[in-house]
Amino acid sequence: MYSLGIVKRNIVRADPAAVRELSAFGAATVHEAMGRVGLMRPYMRPIYTGAHLCGTAVTVLLHPGDNWMMHVAAEQLQPGDVVVAACTAENTDGFFGDLLATSFRARGAVGLVIDGGCRDVKDLTAMGFPVWSRAISAKGTIKATLGSVNVRVVCAGAEVNPGDVIVADDDGVVVVPASMAMQVAKAATAREANEATKRAKLASGVLGLDMYDMRPALEKAGLKYID
Amino acid sequence: MYSLGIVKRNIVRADPAAVRELSAFGAATVHEAMGRVGLMRPYMRPIYTGAHLCGTAVTVLLHPGDNWMMHVAAEQLQPGDVVVAACTAENTDGFFGDLLATSFRARGAVGLVIDGGCRDVKDLTAMGFPVWSRAISAKGTIKATLGSVNVRVVCAGAEVNPGDVIVADDDGVVVVPASMAMQVAKAATAREANEATKRAKLASGVLGLDMYDMRPALEKAGLKYID
Amino acid sequence: MYSLGIVKRNIVRADPAAVRELSAFGAATVHEAMGRVGLMRPYMRPIYTGAHLCGTAVTVLLHPGDNWMMHVAAEQLQPGDVVVAACTAENTDGFFGDLLATSFRARGAVGLVIDGGCRDVKDLTAMGFPVWSRAISAKGTIKATLGSVNVRVVCAGAEVNPGDVIVADDDGVVVVPASMAMQVAKAATAREANEATKRAKLASGVLGLDMYDMRPALEKAGLKYID
Amino acid sequence: MYSLGIVKRNIVRADPAAVRELSAFGAATVHEAMGRVGLMRPYMRPIYTGAHLCGTAVTVLLHPGDNWMMHVAAEQLQPGDVVVAACTAENTDGFFGDLLATSFRARGAVGLVIDGGCRDVKDLTAMGFPVWSRAISAKGTIKATLGSVNVRVVCAGAEVNPGDVIVADDDGVVVVPASMAMQVAKAATAREANEATKRAKLASGVLGLDMYDMRPALEKAGLKYID
Amino acid sequence: MYSLGIVKRNIVRADPAAVRELSAFGAATVHEAMGRVGLMRPYMRPIYTGAHLCGTAVTVLLHPGDNWMMHVAAEQLQPGDVVVAACTAENTDGFFGDLLATSFRARGAVGLVIDGGCRDVKDLTAMGFPVWSRAISAKGTIKATLGSVNVRVVCAGAEVNPGDVIVADDDGVVVVPASMAMQVAKAATAREANEATKRAKLASGVLGLDMYDMRPALEKAGLKYID
Amino acid sequence: MYSLGIVKRNIVRADPAAVRELSAFGAATVHEAMGRVGLMRPYMRPIYTGAHLCGTAVTVLLHPGDNWMMHVAAEQLQPGDVVVAACTAENTDGFFGDLLATSFRARGAVGLVIDGGCRDVKDLTAMGFPVWSRAISAKGTIKATLGSVNVRVVCAGAEVNPGDVIVADDDGVVVVPASMAMQVAKAATAREANEATKRAKLASGVLGLDMYDMRPALEKAGLKYID
Repeated sequence: MYSLGIVKRNIVRADPAAVRELSAFGAATVHEAMGRVGLMRPYMRPIYTGAHLCGTAVTVLLHPGDNWMMHVAAEQLQPGDVVVAACTAENTDGFFGDLLATSFRARGAVGLVIDGGCRDVKDLTAMGFPVWSRAISAKGTIKATLGSVNVRVVCAGAEVNPGDVIVADDDGVVVVPASMAMQVAKAATAREANEATKRAKLASGVLGLDMYDMRPALEKAGLKYID
Repeated sequence: MYSLGIVKRNIVRADPAAVRELSAFGAATVHEAMGRVGLMRPYMRPIYTGAHLCGTAVTVLLHPGDNWMMHVAAEQLQPGDVVVAACTAENTDGFFGDLLATSFRARGAVGLVIDGGCRDVKDLTAMGFPVWSRAISAKGTIKATLGSVNVRVVCAGAEVNPGDVIVADDDGVVVVPASMAMQVAKAATAREANEATKRAKLASGVLGLDMYDMRPALEKAGLKYID
Repeated sequence: MYSLGIVKRNIVRADPAAVRELSAFGAATVHEAMGRVGLMRPYMRPIYTGAHLCGTAVTVLLHPGDNWMMHVAAEQLQPGDVVVAACTAENTDGFFGDLLATSFRARGAVGLVIDGGCRDVKDLTAMGFPVWSRAISAKGTIKATLGSVNVRVVCAGAEVNPGDVIVADDDGVVVVPASMAMQVAKAATAREANEATKRAKLASGVLGLDMYDMRPALEKAGLKYID
Repeated sequence: MYSLGIVKRNIVRADPAAVRELSAFGAATVHEAMGRVGLMRPYMRPIYTGAHLCGTAVTVLLHPGDNWMMHVAAEQLQPGDVVVAACTAENTDGFFGDLLATSFRARGAVGLVIDGGCRDVKDLTAMGFPVWSRAISAKGTIKATLGSVNVRVVCAGAEVNPGDVIVADDDGVVVVPASMAMQVAKAATAREANEATKRAKLASGVLGLDMYDMRPALEKAGLKYID
Repeated sequence: MYSLGIVKRNIVRADPAAVRELSAFGAATVHEAMGRVGLMRPYMRPIYTGAHLCGTAVTVLLHPGDNWMMHVAAEQLQPGDVVVAACTAENTDGFFGDLLATSFRARGAVGLVIDGGCRDVKDLTAMGFPVWSRAISAKGTIKATLGSVNVRVVCAGAEVNPGDVIVADDDGVVVVPASMAMQVAKAATAREANEATKRAKLASGVLGLDMYDMRPALEKAGLKYID
Repeated sequence: MYSLGIVKRNIVRADPAAVRELSAFGAATVHEAMGRVGLMRPYMRPIYTGAHLCGTAVTVLLHPGDNWMMHVAAEQLQPGDVVVAACTAENTDGFFGDLLATSFRARGAVGLVIDGGCRDVKDLTAMGFPVWSRAISAKGTIKATLGSVNVRVVCAGAEVNPGDVIVADDDGVVVVPASMAMQVAKAATAREANEATKRAKLASGVLGLDMYDMRPALEKAGLKYID
């Protein structure tokens, strides 16, 4: 896992049925369904509003200012994959632009999550190729040092293994381990169903205090109402 | 004011007529009309472009990662209120989403200002429920520790008292003390009228240097023109 | 160059033909054509999506919280100019709003790049007056201390000389020295032509690994493929 | 409270006996004794290790890059006072150096807490004049705009009223409202006594799990031990 | 790995002989010996200068503002262990102080690495109990929510498995997987020996250009010397 | 100036007499003597307390994560030089450690100012080799891409030309253009003399309000004293 200069070709992607089910949900719902783990840091933002993505991770480990491994990763992509790019140090350079997006899409990739910078934002938006990044930057990169592809990485504070499911939208990016994908999809479905009822109640004026029966706990905790 | 575990039920809201007058202005104008005080830090950003809000504050004091008091606050809301949520430490967790928005709106609230994170951005945008926050994050919160409702808080660097007027737009969030609301509304009206004339002059090519008669002061300060 | 209180009236602007040619390109392309230098830090963001700008720099050196020199700069503007405002310390105050934009536009300016804050974002968007800034803030400024106009400045980490060409879009802001403008325009043209071919190849499924003939270098560097 | 251009001469300082008692404690203990409120943001750091301060607040409201009001504040100082300087915007300029420290000390002040920059750190350290600041910066300031002295301010996220007790050490800065000073001092004394016993137990190898009787609550919460 | 509410009791600690060998080296040497991976983000700083630590990781996963699991972790400590505490969100609260340090030391722990805040810095320094943290903060925490102990965590951007070797000093914190510990120790030894010779040469005035034979590569890359 | 891959061998260093005179002053005094310009951003901090430096700049332009040019710069050093290293993007990697310090010192260099990271802090402190940096990081760098030596650079927001005088201490780093060095030294001398008198007056209890005759201006500005 700690080796640089490695490309793993055969990875176990999450069950396509689970990916399909998870694709119906947003990042917040999936994060809750996971038990509130697996979320990337909130500095990861989509390059355009309304972006939504659900796919299986092909991971890349980059060095600051060097995007060589992105080209290596392209060859490992299969339809439905999401490239998840981590970096050995905090860096905002523009590792990714419309040419790489064209290549990734040609291989079937559905988006990119990168703990670094992205450029050609206008073109990517026009292409509808969604990217979540820590920065937008026109700064170009070099191709000089080996990183790795399809090793376990830490991206924006979250562990990502090749084949994990990535769910991302306006609220952020969540990582679902491949082995938990179906179980999380079921939990998300249950949660969502449950939310519709709650939403209707709250819309009718019922308070969360009553709907969730919070008053006894609040009183026990010592909450005081004064006038 | 420093107590945790307090909910103040009867607060004095700013004069509705003043709120109505202030609702015609943006944050920059109101901030100037206040004498350039009362502004929250600029990291407070609206979750969608074009959001505008003017209402009376119901304040909440939260702990990091805990949104229990948001539910307590819901019960204290009246039509036209804005929830202003401060936190005892810097935290970006997603304290607020579409369920709470549904509840707040059912109570008449017109928006939220939170020195923390917000989620369900897509749904909130669709609802047209405006939120200004320090972050967007899918991260869920717990309900374990008492904060307070309707105590004086410091939110994003600004003091907010329950009942104060909150004016927010794309430029940021400004707090108008309830007792000053009408006076600030008048000053804003005067300022805006004044600006129309200035705008026309500047559009015609008159320089600010001349319109504001700055040349003598600049010369006195020692400004030198060279070729 | 280090003097405060100086306004240089006669500056040498970049060749209009070069500016015209450069206006066809985005910041990323121009940055690459420059040899990957001249880029401002990526915290400089446009106030609205889709903004694009190409013009000659009139520089301003500001003090934190003081926009006096912006009015002085207005008089030095010529059609096609871009105001580039640096600040002697990091500051997010709202140095610029719709009144100054009206004045700048009346003088022919096509936009603003400011290492500080901007306000009246809604009005500026409606006007279509593009601004790249480090912050959006309603905070007003004073007019008390002399800075300079048309001296060499450091703006968001980049050196800017009066008359340099500024190219800015969603990807950031790049500075082209006046003396290099035509040469960079030619290089950008060549690069762009080159990219169209690459894009078509990549879209057809050719890998960057093959198109750029990267495999030998990767092998020499020791890249290992495992299953 | 929101007025600029105000100097309040007669302020009610906290009871000297309470200040004396509080001076025996560090910021963490006082913060706990307050019920975990009143703490400034942790970016406020002492300029030298081992600094400790307890005194009554004389507040100052500054503008970015302008330290005029610091001189106005000097006249209002009495022995045992601490200057607490807030700023209308985030700013790191060096508002304070050894000359002002000499003046403040001559008036009896025991230290400074400033949500801005400080300079002459070497001299201040040699003088033993403690300062907590958000930055160290050699950058000089001007004297052009009125702020206020002895109004309520928000400093590094905490509300400070003139006369409040400020306790600061290597752990940060805490604000004790004047009216609560004696009560907090008593609570801090009780807490400290309590801690000595706990420390001895823990040092002997007793676990917090047992000393605080946490095991039942952990089990009830569902904690699982696996091998 | 993704479960909350888990305490793993039996972990495989790195070979004590490898830990002993690694303890002779600083973080930079170990990081290089690892092949330049395994480093935590540089915001992790020691609370006092000259701190040095080498031990086996007992991991803790915390929630913002909640240090309950630190007490649970204490029971799992063995002599030579280092507590490595990660947090589910960025948070600077003071999760750790002198009482917990007393408890950890009584169990044999040699230090703490925490992606959160630390307090009682003066006492910890006097105890000689080294801590690397993202912040120093007097802010207290609660004990309300289950995290985990001895699960794999991401701490300050680095993956840490229970039993891994942690090497930390003034330069930062590096994580050596238990299975690689001896191999890294050997590589570090070789590297250090090598450095002594280099240091002597450089001290005598030999240039790195010549010692590392860089001139041909620089010339090939196109470096130009001008006068 | 914008070329990468350039090493300028013959640079005009500031007058040694001016450097000698300037070496008597701290950064704050020199910054004031310059007219309050030429200061680097305050994130540049010395790696140990009490560091002080005055010398002539040999500039280096680095790429993120690549310290190749530091070796090239070593050859250009003369006794009394300070290496000033800028980077084409924000990066905290450890570009510099004790081996390079040994080499630089062997060539006569008196310190380093780097808009990047530094490592081997303990060794550098023991050597008494002063470094001002944006970060401390154990992270190693590669040697792959050409930057430049002795071109004009922007370092931490300040323009630095080869041969300029660098004055740095606990308060920060200031750049004095070679051509202004003697004039600034004279101004600093005058200022310092002036400060001694002021300090004595302030120590005796005279207020800055009176010493600087501020009361009329404050009154004119509208300052109001209330009780």
